[in-house]
Amino acid sequence: MGASTKQGHEIAEKSREIVKSLIGDKIEGLSPGEQDIIERIVHSTADPEYADLVAISPTFLEESLKSLKNGEDILTDINMVKAGITQYDGNVECFIKNEEVINIAKKNKITRAAAAIQYASNIGFEGIIAIGNAPTALYKAIDLFERDELDVKSIVGVPVGFVGAADSKEALQKNKIPNIIIKGPKGGTPVCCAIMNSLIQTMKKNK
Amino acid sequence: MGASTKQGHEIAEKSREIVKSLIGDKIEGLSPGEQDIIERIVHSTADPEYADLVAISPTFLEESLKSLKNGEDILTDINMVKAGITQYDGNVECFIKNEEVINIAKKNKITRAAAAIQYASNIGFEGIIAIGNAPTALYKAIDLFERDELDVKSIVGVPVGFVGAADSKEALQKNKIPNIIIKGPKGGTPVCCAIMNSLIQTMKKNK
Repeated sequence: MGASTKQGHEIAEKSREIVKSLIGDKIEGLSPGEQDIIERIVHSTADPEYADLVAISPTFLEESLKSLKNGEDILTDINMVKAGITQYDGNVECFIKNEEVINIAKKNKITRAAAAIQYASNIGFEGIIAIGNAPTALYKAIDLFERDELDVKSIVGVPVGFVGAADSKEALQKNKIPNIIIKGPKGGTPVCCAIMNSLIQTMKKNK
Repeated sequence: MGASTKQGHEIAEKSREIVKSLIGDKIEGLSPGEQDIIERIVHSTADPEYADLVAISPTFLEESLKSLKNGEDILTDINMVKAGITQYDGNVECFIKNEEVINIAKKNKITRAAAAIQYASNIGFEGIIAIGNAPTALYKAIDLFERDELDVKSIVGVPVGFVGAADSKEALQKNKIPNIIIKGPKGGTPVCCAIMNSLIQTMKKNK
């Protein structure tokens, strides 16, 4: 999907056809933008099960596209997610290696991933938060949003893992922040990047 | 696993126990270093199916550890993989955005991922190649190795996708390069990083 040569495009094209044949019936009722998100997730993981695990809140697509169109920031929990979000003209940020974040983590005995969200709140972040790895970052984002201390327009909440991930995503799903989640322990950085890159492409197409 | 705080370590620890309970019986016969690789893959994907899909060639662990101990380079196919390989004291390289690579791709009508491997060969690369995304990069690495034009000590061959990925991994498995693959279309950047980070940790422990 990030293909930039003829051969690359052909592979992406053929892959998309296979994905459609595998999960097309499951995503029929969704909008084209939502279908694109789910197709890209399955394309990038080669795991059709994701079509059964994605849950998209009613305003997620609209609010996310508005934020991207306004050129607002995208904040990722880890650098792998940042590295995989390509072709956005705005800022894609990750604060996990920031000196002040490391201090916040130590002082408050929280993970660096959570401290990075706290830091974003401190410096007046405004935009979309994309979490592909750390449940603690997702909990922190929900908490700060509920305290009215974080101007987040939507959250991509797809942390992965057997400890905390599923619970954190359920907590997000119950919240009123526009969101997309993967139910259960699955998720991860390719899923997170697939969602963000799909949104960016849809935004550019609609411009 | 990349945890750096107490809370982070506790989550990683608990997750590892769950992984052991899910796949422990399937990896019993393997060496501790090989077991660690597979546990980390399942930890980072939350997908126990990977325990059935991993294939490790007999000399992969030994040759990879030797290369890392010698401080040789790690070459990744895309920047997401590079971003996820942490705690290595040597160089982790990715050439996909290099100007010359873009020229090689255009001139030879190949993907940029394949051109980046060609470029590595041109500049005398020596070390481990870690491919988490592009089958075309994997084919190029095999081809250059067979022509005796690439000094690769082992290949982590875990590209993902419905087009070309499975075939490229089968081709690697049949080759004499020490290798690890994921059978079928699954694989991807977190799997690739899990393998490399496991090797790096095992190398440091054995030092």
